Amino acid sequence: MTASISTGHRARRDRLRAAFEAEAFLVSDLINVTYLTGFTGSNAALLCRLDAIDDADQIATDGRYRTQVSQQSPDVPATIERDVVGALLSHAVDNGLRRIAFEAGALSVASFNRLVQRFDGKVELVPTSGVVEELRSVKDADEVDLLTQACAVADRALAIIIEQGIIAPGRTEREVARTLEWEMYAQGAEAIAFETIVATGVNSAIPHHRPTEAVLASGDFVKLDFGAVVGGYHSDMTRTYVLDHAADWQRDIYDLVATAQAAGRAALKPGADLRGIDAAARDVIAADGHGEHYVHGLGHGVGLQIHEAPGIGTAATGTLPFGAAVTVEPGVYLPGAGGVRIEDTLVVTDGDPLLLTTTDKTFTVL
Amino acid sequence: MTASISTGHRARRDRLRAAFEAEAFLVSDLINVTYLTGFTGSNAALLCRLDAIDDADQIATDGRYRTQVSQQSPDVPATIERDVVGALLSHAVDNGLRRIAFEAGALSVASFNRLVQRFDGKVELVPTSGVVEELRSVKDADEVDLLTQACAVADRALAIIIEQGIIAPGRTEREVARTLEWEMYAQGAEAIAFETIVATGVNSAIPHHRPTEAVLASGDFVKLDFGAVVGGYHSDMTRTYVLDHAADWQRDIYDLVATAQAAGRAALKPGADLRGIDAAARDVIAADGHGEHYVHGLGHGVGLQIHEAPGIGTAATGTLPFGAAVTVEPGVYLPGAGGVRIEDTLVVTDGDPLLLTTTDKTFTVL
Repeated sequence: MTASISTGHRARRDRLRAAFEAEAFLVSDLINVTYLTGFTGSNAALLCRLDAIDDADQIATDGRYRTQVSQQSPDVPATIERDVVGALLSHAVDNGLRRIAFEAGALSVASFNRLVQRFDGKVELVPTSGVVEELRSVKDADEVDLLTQACAVADRALAIIIEQGIIAPGRTEREVARTLEWEMYAQGAEAIAFETIVATGVNSAIPHHRPTEAVLASGDFVKLDFGAVVGGYHSDMTRTYVLDHAADWQRDIYDLVATAQAAGRAALKPGADLRGIDAAARDVIAADGHGEHYVHGLGHGVGLQIHEAPGIGTAATGTLPFGAAVTVEPGVYLPGAGGVRIEDTLVVTDGDPLLLTTTDKTFTVL
Repeated sequence: MTASISTGHRARRDRLRAAFEAEAFLVSDLINVTYLTGFTGSNAALLCRLDAIDDADQIATDGRYRTQVSQQSPDVPATIERDVVGALLSHAVDNGLRRIAFEAGALSVASFNRLVQRFDGKVELVPTSGVVEELRSVKDADEVDLLTQACAVADRALAIIIEQGIIAPGRTEREVARTLEWEMYAQGAEAIAFETIVATGVNSAIPHHRPTEAVLASGDFVKLDFGAVVGGYHSDMTRTYVLDHAADWQRDIYDLVATAQAAGRAALKPGADLRGIDAAARDVIAADGHGEHYVHGLGHGVGLQIHEAPGIGTAATGTLPFGAAVTVEPGVYLPGAGGVRIEDTLVVTDGDPLLLTTTDKTFTVL
């Protein structure tokens, strides 16, 4: 991709500063704190000075993370206190700040009430929503690199278990799922991105099936939806295979989903209407009479979370930004028979989208 | 144990009704919804009528969970709507309820503001905290049964990997951790309770070490802290072994921690002061001059979450209820040398606490 987004946590905080008007921004969503500082502890908040230089920013965490915060966020001074939002508002008041924006979706009523009681009359708390989430929807080069690594881990793990003959009649869904996860760890995953889906036979018609003791059998569709985490970034890929021998109806719906998925990928252009992208794939499936068998959206943003902005579906609003990392994952599910989903993770560029999940998608009988 | 707590989700909702005064209670914490109804979907809320019979309760979730909610919570009528708290408040207003208690720690400012805007003047929202969490601290017979199963899975998995010689010089921490997790799945775990800790040599001196590529070596302490989930309930156990041959200092600190842990277990009596229980174990370690090497609390409640009420530490308040499920896990950590932690999960009864993690704790050289 032609990366035009400057990288580094400080560059991200500078983009936040440019985003809107207030004296300071109190970030209490933990993923957003990680995005803006690199710190990954389980208790943290960040005060971003919107009217000043970066050196005035302050992070807060508790004593368990004293060493970790200085290692992960060496450029942001840290306050060590268990009540992280209280500590940062106190710091703001001491520095003469009055008008503080906060994340209304990431602060509980209980925390808010405690702050109001403690700082009554001293600060004005301004609710905001989705500010950092919108910044996060555009990936910088560092993030694309980590997403690429995460997708490569998943690609390699799948290739290995296919070569080892693990996806075969006689195995259980759980066995295949656990082996795939094991191999992702072996290939460098620091964690599993979400609960691995392995769905065989009629179970493949259930969009989000949890692996069971069901045994893979000849002639089954086997659907695998899985991902790895590398450096905090998640990969997401679905492949569907047939075991031993394929029936015509299986080839037909596979081809249909593959055609729809290609149409969805082709629609990933900067500035494209999100509903329009969904429609590009959905129309292919509907035109073949399977509209009612495609029961979910086309895709979602992926990054520090497995599901993040932008959502690509029938109820989406807005447009696709340059640099977004998204999934494209149409499916056709025939209850009682079987289903196919094909999913890739891609990054939006000025030209063709960058395909991060590179496992072959041609119709394959294992 | 002599179980005197009646079981079933309805019995739990009846205990909630008895807990305090209001017309209805809006439960939006997902774990609390699971506790009170059995429903495990990722979007749900519950309206509990406090002034009425159980049949007036109402659960809300979205369309993805239409079938699941009717299977898991057949005794509670369900509203299918994405905005679950909005749907339940609307239901409350339609039924003439005005004074609704809610969980202030489990509702965001953004959600609260939306509710206030929509129901302005129609309902009075009363903030509460910790109401269901306190009920959850006392386990009923169904819960003790699931905790017992989860602990047995962890016991069996550890016994198997010891018998297979997996905990041995030459293996990496990550290999041991992944093998142990694999075996927990094989023994019936539906999930891993928390990130498995395997810490060898000097790493054993880090209380919450993440497994690395560090290789186990002769003479090392190896500390394993891990758990399984069965039926939503978490087990939690730590064992520390020495590889091949033990030094005197290793025997000494192991014996010290074992003595402290026994003292902590013996202090688990209904009505006992929580800080007093912590002190029972801490005093043993401090008397031996290792007080500064024991840097965390003695234990925590365990159930639908790996950490829940009651906390047992130096800053705890209150007393230990009959029927609580808690861990007892003192440790001594010598930076640069090694550390020992011994942890069990137990249930508080009128007599001796019920020991759920039954793996041998005598000093063992593998």
